[in-house]
Amino acid sequence: MNATKIFLNEQDMPKQWYNLAADLPKPPLPPLGPDGNPVSPDMLAPVFPMNLIEQEVSTQRWIDIPEKVLELYNLWRPSPLYRAKRLEEYLGTPARIYYKNEGVSPAGSHKPNTAVAQAYYNKEFGIKRLTTETGAGQWGSALSFACALLGLECKVFMVRISFDQKPYRRLMMETWGGKCIPSPSSETNAGRKILEENPDTPGSLGIAISEAVEAAVTDPTGGTRYSLGSVLNHVMLHQTVIGLEAKKQLKLAGESKVDIVIGCAGGGSNFAGLSFPFVADKINGADIEIIPVEPSSCPTMTKAPFSYDFGDTAEMTPLLPMHSLGHKFVPPPIHAGGLRYHGMAPLVSHAIELGLLSPRAIHQLECYEAAMIWARTEGFISAPETSHAIAATIQEAKRAKEEGKEKVIILNWSGHGLMDLTGYEAYMNGKLFDYPLPEEEIKKSIATMAHLPKPSLA
Amino acid sequence: MNATKIFLNEQDMPKQWYNLAADLPKPPLPPLGPDGNPVSPDMLAPVFPMNLIEQEVSTQRWIDIPEKVLELYNLWRPSPLYRAKRLEEYLGTPARIYYKNEGVSPAGSHKPNTAVAQAYYNKEFGIKRLTTETGAGQWGSALSFACALLGLECKVFMVRISFDQKPYRRLMMETWGGKCIPSPSSETNAGRKILEENPDTPGSLGIAISEAVEAAVTDPTGGTRYSLGSVLNHVMLHQTVIGLEAKKQLKLAGESKVDIVIGCAGGGSNFAGLSFPFVADKINGADIEIIPVEPSSCPTMTKAPFSYDFGDTAEMTPLLPMHSLGHKFVPPPIHAGGLRYHGMAPLVSHAIELGLLSPRAIHQLECYEAAMIWARTEGFISAPETSHAIAATIQEAKRAKEEGKEKVIILNWSGHGLMDLTGYEAYMNGKLFDYPLPEEEIKKSIATMAHLPKPSLA
Repeated sequence: MNATKIFLNEQDMPKQWYNLAADLPKPPLPPLGPDGNPVSPDMLAPVFPMNLIEQEVSTQRWIDIPEKVLELYNLWRPSPLYRAKRLEEYLGTPARIYYKNEGVSPAGSHKPNTAVAQAYYNKEFGIKRLTTETGAGQWGSALSFACALLGLECKVFMVRISFDQKPYRRLMMETWGGKCIPSPSSETNAGRKILEENPDTPGSLGIAISEAVEAAVTDPTGGTRYSLGSVLNHVMLHQTVIGLEAKKQLKLAGESKVDIVIGCAGGGSNFAGLSFPFVADKINGADIEIIPVEPSSCPTMTKAPFSYDFGDTAEMTPLLPMHSLGHKFVPPPIHAGGLRYHGMAPLVSHAIELGLLSPRAIHQLECYEAAMIWARTEGFISAPETSHAIAATIQEAKRAKEEGKEKVIILNWSGHGLMDLTGYEAYMNGKLFDYPLPEEEIKKSIATMAHLPKPSLA
Repeated sequence: MNATKIFLNEQDMPKQWYNLAADLPKPPLPPLGPDGNPVSPDMLAPVFPMNLIEQEVSTQRWIDIPEKVLELYNLWRPSPLYRAKRLEEYLGTPARIYYKNEGVSPAGSHKPNTAVAQAYYNKEFGIKRLTTETGAGQWGSALSFACALLGLECKVFMVRISFDQKPYRRLMMETWGGKCIPSPSSETNAGRKILEENPDTPGSLGIAISEAVEAAVTDPTGGTRYSLGSVLNHVMLHQTVIGLEAKKQLKLAGESKVDIVIGCAGGGSNFAGLSFPFVADKINGADIEIIPVEPSSCPTMTKAPFSYDFGDTAEMTPLLPMHSLGHKFVPPPIHAGGLRYHGMAPLVSHAIELGLLSPRAIHQLECYEAAMIWARTEGFISAPETSHAIAATIQEAKRAKEEGKEKVIILNWSGHGLMDLTGYEAYMNGKLFDYPLPEEEIKKSIATMAHLPKPSLA
């Protein structure tokens, strides 16, 4: 078969998610509370519904996808697998390049894979309203979409500077019935305190998380919970539908072996979604190179230690065992907003520690150059985050050419960039820059975690 | 089968376009030159390549889709057919509602179906560069995309007010390598003349057409041609791949009969694309209601006569036999920019005259209300043009409920609205209005065609 695009029939859609925690040679480490002791499920109950907390700590290998979630997934899933033939021709590579197109979802990215699942479990648990934070708006729009389809209210605290600069993302949320407010807001203690001190603050993801959590746990009716779009184990779990579909589609395309798996990684969820089913093969002895790609300006995986650290700037979350640049780290203003996070999903970090992954960092100019080539060969305009996966793919395709090897490469095309065209404008006008980070700055930021417990997989 | 989404395998993609001209009970009427005599193919040669002119006048029923066009179509085709189950439930209708999702193309609409074909035929004919005009930017971005993939240069004259107001559409064109310039420009005589008279003009589609045609025919190398995104016969032809796919998919969905076919119509191409294969069935006796939907503020099909009229404001094009409000008609500022055209495709107009279609006009508030319901049930955010098809679908679904009939309805979901969210904002803020047209104004505009020849199908 020599198709450009490989569909999967609805009846072949995976009916279970894959949980990497079941197969890791060393069991995942627990999050810790402020006292340094493991956080118990009960302690998380005011924040998340118990059914999601159970998923968060589960070590069961396969977890059934509820019928209703499958029905909603079917709006855009199974997502097509493409063969990037025009890119291959352009590069003159002997590699065969495949990509999963997650941009076909109504919100335009992979985010709805977990948004729909989280909204479903909250609804099942009797929750009426979800709160969350969003930076550039990808996650806030995905959760608003999911809440619309499941009949939940949704309140999104959007970082003020993005709220002002990206009105289209806000309008997507509102079209789906979500309530989007700039953060810091006067609706929470955390927000009011910051506004008093600094009325003109542009806001930050850390502040927005604090507000969203506060808004959830202080609802006197108890009908509100908080939802997170990446980092946590249950989020990685929900995304594995991507990789499970991809495996079936590669088989349909006649590929019996995959050599390289690539995804961009900010909090880690789209990368984990595609790669974890392949990580399982690698644990079982398969010869696969699995590459999470991050911005050189926010080198969590390539330059930061595996440490316990807070998930947010304000130190409200439990301590998570992860690669972290330090929770006060403020990354340079690169356009890939979704990759500007100081930490990395504990499960991804864990797999890195076990030597299962080969992280790579790339600067944004190379990523935009790759995205331009992609647009003019494969036709689709990529999200700035996704461009990191494309840049690494091009590096690997060139290497295959040099080595004269017919490698099979698969990447996760995690979303379209139609709402992010200002980055392309800056690139085309020569106004885009790389932001090399001084080693000293990285060291200084990492030092802020010196007093925190160190995780050990020994 | 009870699927939400019906795929079609690549090998089942239609290999030929369907030409309605072959089956019309009365043959199509020719365009006329300024002297009132039919325009010969030779006269069009400076504007279009001869292979497309041949398609324009062809009465052959089936026309092979070139291999290369099929290969490019496969980037987003076959497009999925959806069952709008959640909308059906919301409306409590016994109707079964299906929609073709043309928003999955890289440009986000049906426009690439003809853009790719036109770029291909021009390239085959040895043309190096295409010019075109664009209003809101849907067509300009689709042609830029097609030219990028086929290695042609592309120059787009974009109506200045849209150029200023919609930078994202321009950025899409530039990302694909298209050159987008505000019209009127100083690059053409037509543009310079208007700028001299009125340096601050917001521009118009009529002016932009004049500039694009002039830029094509005055290229001294002879390597440039003009491309049009709707109205013409060959454009309708290329779009029929939508309806041909839909027929196969409806069969896969277990539907043996369709009762109602719906599409929005500005120049007519997305409507023709879905409906013409069903019009053929109707000509052969099938009992189908086929509804092109237009804005009440630009009631070309429902209030204007079948007349010969110019395609552009500046009277540079041949006279086309079509429903027209008069080529000087300036429609009110509704958000559905793609439906603000004074005329209608000659083939669609012809089918209306023969009683094969049942045109309908709807005001924009009802359309936005329909689009909001759609976003919160089906999940996708619709283009303002597409919302007209949705509004008519809801009208028909409600009628089926009143009548207690299990009708099968199919509509063309012609594109997403992610670049057009300001219309949604105005709607949600109560700042959107209908624009009822005084009968007198319509009469006055129609009267401007009094001196032009009248087509007759008698």
